[in-house]
Amino acid sequence: MQPTFYAVIPAGGAGTRLWPLSRRSAPKFLHDLTGSGRTLLQSTWDRLAAVTDAQLVVTGSAHAAAVAEQLPDLPAADLLTEPSPRDSMAAIGLAAAVLLNRHPDQDVTIGSFAADHVITGGEQFAAAVRTAVELARADYVATIGIRPTGPSTAFGYIHLGEEVSAIAGAHQVRSFTEKPDPATAAEYLATGAYRWNAGMFVVRAQVLLDHLDRLQPALASGLRTIATAWDTPDRQRVLIREWPALTRIAIDHAIAEPVAAAGGVAVVPAEFGWDDVGDWASLAALLPAGVGVAGDGARVLGEESRTWIEDSPGALVVPHSGRRVVLLGLPDAVVVDIPDALLVTSTEQAQRVKEVVAALQDEPGGADLL
Amino acid sequence: MQPTFYAVIPAGGAGTRLWPLSRRSAPKFLHDLTGSGRTLLQSTWDRLAAVTDAQLVVTGSAHAAAVAEQLPDLPAADLLTEPSPRDSMAAIGLAAAVLLNRHPDQDVTIGSFAADHVITGGEQFAAAVRTAVELARADYVATIGIRPTGPSTAFGYIHLGEEVSAIAGAHQVRSFTEKPDPATAAEYLATGAYRWNAGMFVVRAQVLLDHLDRLQPALASGLRTIATAWDTPDRQRVLIREWPALTRIAIDHAIAEPVAAAGGVAVVPAEFGWDDVGDWASLAALLPAGVGVAGDGARVLGEESRTWIEDSPGALVVPHSGRRVVLLGLPDAVVVDIPDALLVTSTEQAQRVKEVVAALQDEPGGADLL
Repeated sequence: MQPTFYAVIPAGGAGTRLWPLSRRSAPKFLHDLTGSGRTLLQSTWDRLAAVTDAQLVVTGSAHAAAVAEQLPDLPAADLLTEPSPRDSMAAIGLAAAVLLNRHPDQDVTIGSFAADHVITGGEQFAAAVRTAVELARADYVATIGIRPTGPSTAFGYIHLGEEVSAIAGAHQVRSFTEKPDPATAAEYLATGAYRWNAGMFVVRAQVLLDHLDRLQPALASGLRTIATAWDTPDRQRVLIREWPALTRIAIDHAIAEPVAAAGGVAVVPAEFGWDDVGDWASLAALLPAGVGVAGDGARVLGEESRTWIEDSPGALVVPHSGRRVVLLGLPDAVVVDIPDALLVTSTEQAQRVKEVVAALQDEPGGADLL
Repeated sequence: MQPTFYAVIPAGGAGTRLWPLSRRSAPKFLHDLTGSGRTLLQSTWDRLAAVTDAQLVVTGSAHAAAVAEQLPDLPAADLLTEPSPRDSMAAIGLAAAVLLNRHPDQDVTIGSFAADHVITGGEQFAAAVRTAVELARADYVATIGIRPTGPSTAFGYIHLGEEVSAIAGAHQVRSFTEKPDPATAAEYLATGAYRWNAGMFVVRAQVLLDHLDRLQPALASGLRTIATAWDTPDRQRVLIREWPALTRIAIDHAIAEPVAAAGGVAVVPAEFGWDDVGDWASLAALLPAGVGVAGDGARVLGEESRTWIEDSPGALVVPHSGRRVVLLGLPDAVVVDIPDALLVTSTEQAQRVKEVVAALQDEPGGADLL
């Protein structure tokens, strides 16, 4: 059978820690968060286009139009729309099942890559993906392990095992860990045997569905039923019946962790730069610091000419309302200025934005702001 | 002659340290800065209405319509419009000369009170003004001395001399001082013989013009010429000719300081609360601190329901754009949210807003923001 590699982009997630820029109506992946001129989704597309010319996006119905507009090269049939969020296993499993049905004479490998991460070092990324595809073709569930830049407690870790002898640089995965406490994270780093888990999985579609049949049979069965109807007039009818009943579970818990325990997961340790842009502090760290008298040491995401920044090193200003933003003498401040909402905080407090957004939801008029 | 007391309100000053709320088009005195529901100008009017039913406002032509709208009880004839700013001596001297011409059969005393100060303790204020009027009728230039609440370097001081025997509580003024350095301010406070100069002057109109004839004869002559034409069809013609040539000088330098040196100034030491709302930090100190989980220890000028404030004691939020403002974990922050501009700074840096506004003026599009 003809081997084919499909990049699958699950474009979901609320990104509430990047409120008020990231909204339910326009989540993180639809925004240019690096000033590159391309949104995170478009950059993900560009990066994967260097590896394969076959890409597929799975997104919520609320965002399908925006995704189609941002990705004019994505064939309409390869934009899969979910009626409601059912976590990453349903999204990736749906893609695998639909692709298997569509290409019965091909050996389809899929690689799943989040739409809202920032990656630098495209060459190294492409090389790592190619190695992961080799591992997948040897029937591994393959992942890519990011070299930690510090003892982060915000990410899960991948514990490396023995080298995979047939494929240079690849290792067995001993286990996936939950987000560690600081002491544990420091221990992980000291051993040199841990990588960050960026949620990238490369696997033959058939292997994925076989694991799923065994580990989550109800979910597998629902997805196969939906996939069979997908390219037929029955799609909506079947979706209405089957979709709401699908098990909500992350691919990490459904597949990666149990299969790793059985020795079926391999990892490509990689050296490219990666960030999941988890909050405004991470974003500030990704942007170049301003220079000159105004803006010295501060970051601007947007039109710098709309800002006037003095004596605020480490600060981040997002001038998205069309107004002039003046920031004076507040190091490490975060100012996100959107037409209907304004956030003022500090990089140190940035993780707490999620709590505030949750609390706002219950305020009069608050739900409109989410 | 019938004695009459006119309160004269010079409504001028840019208030650039309260940018971006205070603008050239709508300076400080036109705003409600205390959440009382009345603007500073209206509060000044209310306060003086308890002392006299005769008030007169001098303002720039750009603000005449707004002043008339805010003060519906002000007779149109008692709103004097200056073609251009010529400092406080011209404004107050014009009022004195016009009133003398209009009331040749009355003994007119005027009291000048800035339109943009905040005063608490209306009874004590009224009593102090009445004592100052008594002093004025004894031909003093009378002023009111504010009890310092600390060694401020932001205000000039009045050095008290001997008591005025005929009028209980009044003192001769030994001298007016410039804004002192911190050590000097502390010495002033230690002696107990110094008061803050709030720029309040009460004086018979004839006495003021006599001093002016002697001390600033060119200015006095110009003002008399203008006043003679004021209530005639010649007003505009004479203003165009005479106004631009008037000496720019503050009443403090033109009258108060030289007359004090000659023993002609007396002061009423007063106990009411006074603030010139010099910057956002002073304003924050005037407002009541918020209570409850959200807003604890922070101040809001405007609709509190538009704000969500957490862990920011000492902060000030001015939500004037109609948007939701979220402030998280930034003690002493100042956030002023106006439809076309946003200022984020700290109470500690508030004095520097004036510099930033000056710098913005030279930026592309900056002049529109002033």
